[in-house]
Amino acid sequence: MSVIKVAILGFGTVGEGVYRTIQSHAEELTSVLGRKVEVAAVLIKNKQKTRDIREDVLITTDFAEILNLPQLDVVVEAIVDKEQPFTFLNQAIQSGCHIITANKEMFAHHGNELLELAENYNVSVGYEATVAGGIPIIQTLRQLLNVNRVRHIQGILNGTSNFILTEMREKKQSFADALILAQEKGYAEADPTNDVEGFDAFYKTMILSRIAFGEQPNWKNVERAGITSISRELIETAEKMGLRFKHIASISKTGSQINAEVKPVLVGKSHPFYSIEGVENAVNIHSDIVGSITLQGPGAGMYPTASAVIEDLVYVCQNRSSNKSITKTTAACDGEKKGNEKELWLIQGLSKNYNNPLITWVAQASDKIAIIKATKEEIEKLINLKKATCYFQIIGEYDTEIKNKEVTLAVL
Amino acid sequence: MSVIKVAILGFGTVGEGVYRTIQSHAEELTSVLGRKVEVAAVLIKNKQKTRDIREDVLITTDFAEILNLPQLDVVVEAIVDKEQPFTFLNQAIQSGCHIITANKEMFAHHGNELLELAENYNVSVGYEATVAGGIPIIQTLRQLLNVNRVRHIQGILNGTSNFILTEMREKKQSFADALILAQEKGYAEADPTNDVEGFDAFYKTMILSRIAFGEQPNWKNVERAGITSISRELIETAEKMGLRFKHIASISKTGSQINAEVKPVLVGKSHPFYSIEGVENAVNIHSDIVGSITLQGPGAGMYPTASAVIEDLVYVCQNRSSNKSITKTTAACDGEKKGNEKELWLIQGLSKNYNNPLITWVAQASDKIAIIKATKEEIEKLINLKKATCYFQIIGEYDTEIKNKEVTLAVL
Repeated sequence: MSVIKVAILGFGTVGEGVYRTIQSHAEELTSVLGRKVEVAAVLIKNKQKTRDIREDVLITTDFAEILNLPQLDVVVEAIVDKEQPFTFLNQAIQSGCHIITANKEMFAHHGNELLELAENYNVSVGYEATVAGGIPIIQTLRQLLNVNRVRHIQGILNGTSNFILTEMREKKQSFADALILAQEKGYAEADPTNDVEGFDAFYKTMILSRIAFGEQPNWKNVERAGITSISRELIETAEKMGLRFKHIASISKTGSQINAEVKPVLVGKSHPFYSIEGVENAVNIHSDIVGSITLQGPGAGMYPTASAVIEDLVYVCQNRSSNKSITKTTAACDGEKKGNEKELWLIQGLSKNYNNPLITWVAQASDKIAIIKATKEEIEKLINLKKATCYFQIIGEYDTEIKNKEVTLAVL
Repeated sequence: MSVIKVAILGFGTVGEGVYRTIQSHAEELTSVLGRKVEVAAVLIKNKQKTRDIREDVLITTDFAEILNLPQLDVVVEAIVDKEQPFTFLNQAIQSGCHIITANKEMFAHHGNELLELAENYNVSVGYEATVAGGIPIIQTLRQLLNVNRVRHIQGILNGTSNFILTEMREKKQSFADALILAQEKGYAEADPTNDVEGFDAFYKTMILSRIAFGEQPNWKNVERAGITSISRELIETAEKMGLRFKHIASISKTGSQINAEVKPVLVGKSHPFYSIEGVENAVNIHSDIVGSITLQGPGAGMYPTASAVIEDLVYVCQNRSSNKSITKTTAACDGEKKGNEKELWLIQGLSKNYNNPLITWVAQASDKIAIIKATKEEIEKLINLKKATCYFQIIGEYDTEIKNKEVTLAVL
């Protein structure tokens, strides 16, 4: 029986999870692929560290050694960096290897180049693990897109941010304390910027955009905000109104324009993200035939991410071109209208006596915090004029229960 | 350009949805399949009815006429009946057609025979639309199963029952009134037995079992209960304890034994099904590598179901054998242990003074309703001895909030 030879670049959480899963699920892989899968090499940084890797596996710090192996079929990349892994994968494709990556930052930047190069070399690219860990979102989108036209995608794509927001609400903790806990639990890095400032979710959103709409928006036009501005007070006030903060990525397409934003918003009980808690991820796809579908599951972690990589391994070894949906998706998608419509906002710092016919007061939660109805333009004016300090959009239907609460709050 | 010719059997909600979608998404279909898709014939019951169907389509009450068409590639079956459509699909396969069905009752009964026959004739079978409408559960399971071993599947598979339970809770309606509303809205048939007695969910569960575990359990060993025994009082009491009734199908495998049940249970806030409301469906898959994934979406309706059929159309025309995962899945799945463990139950009618060392009282909600901890065996004894009138299992984690409420209730 012939063998599929795999190299794993990086032996952190994801790399190790992939290695272990290939060992533990060898039988399933052989059964589905008709060939044995063997890890031939692992690329590491530090030769001194001891690792539990079989003796017949080449362990090296030199990628050239891996490329020089007499047989190599698939390169799995799980390095935390942007440029070096891109170079490696470029070389791997040119050596005729299928590539699989779990690296969202690299893939958001260089995905197009890799996909084009792979097409020229007739190899496949797997990147299911770059978005929402174990949730098979890319495969599901690809399948839906066979005929459905995607209108709008929303996602909770960063488990660390969602964990922090959940802790702050449930345990009435400050952002700082919740972040420390996330770090202790291994959910957040020592430098948490990527997660809490929304960069990680931004990269994932760009990858989703390419699948759903065939291209990315101009990065400069994408609003990206993290969760650092959300205080415990805001969370508590929102909770009283039946609303929860969620860090949500949103993409839609109007005409030829892709609208994307990654920011904290408030959702009511009827929104499918209201009950997504802790490190869970969720993605809601709204498409024209099927309507609204939500997928929920583990967004990170050793085995969920490994599962996504292994699904890709099956995918690329069956040599299905993962590039097709990328270049194909040109269907006209009429995303939701944006711009001049009045929307609901939670606003902080606006004086109770502020009078403006363009702004409708919905509820006054405390001296400082209120819910108002206004266009985005008006809200931004208030901020520019320093009439208010911060604002958050409220999305999803506003159910009766919340409305009743509002009335009570407004009377106070 | 060659053409793919499709016949649609039945022109009810699903059949019409498929017809309309093939027209409205012709461009997408041509793009993904490289060939035009054309509806060549529609099988109907009543020739008198007027229908908005193109003139070049053969409309007939005689299936033989359809089989005699000079070219026919795919037969889509959307008839509400069991034996006749089975006969039609048998003949279609033997004529070399791929088949697609949306008929759960027929497929739960005859799926194996059709899949075997299709394998002999080298054609494909699509049945995504038989379970959970527009949610791509079968495709997702098939993909996950490439390497994951499924441990446990839970599903809200009947939108009608879920709608009735939601109405009863939210609007404090009786079962009878909620059923009438479901009928008025077109969610329930004139004879609602199939939905409210759990038959519809049972058939879907049998289909899921075959995909996840390669076979169905013995139907006689499957507990099947509907929602007719759930009173408004029970729902209100459960709500006070932070619990909601959901009609849940559950399948797992222990050794070579498949355990399946379809019945109303109570779930707490931390369970992903707690917030699944109205006609929505949801499926939770627990598998060994990826952990727990939940898919949520429209379980029925013209276009969601049509979307599933059209996905299948792409699938079978790409001639991927949908039979593989059926016969392949033999992985040892250690489902959750059942039997002698104590579990939580909501029980009605048990006297407050009833004393039994094998039963732990957790909370007394009212004179008649309590939460107890006991083995299933003990609970069944109580029922047989007429010490209690009915009981419902409580699943999912019991969170602190509920525990606190319990204490209060117990003191009353």
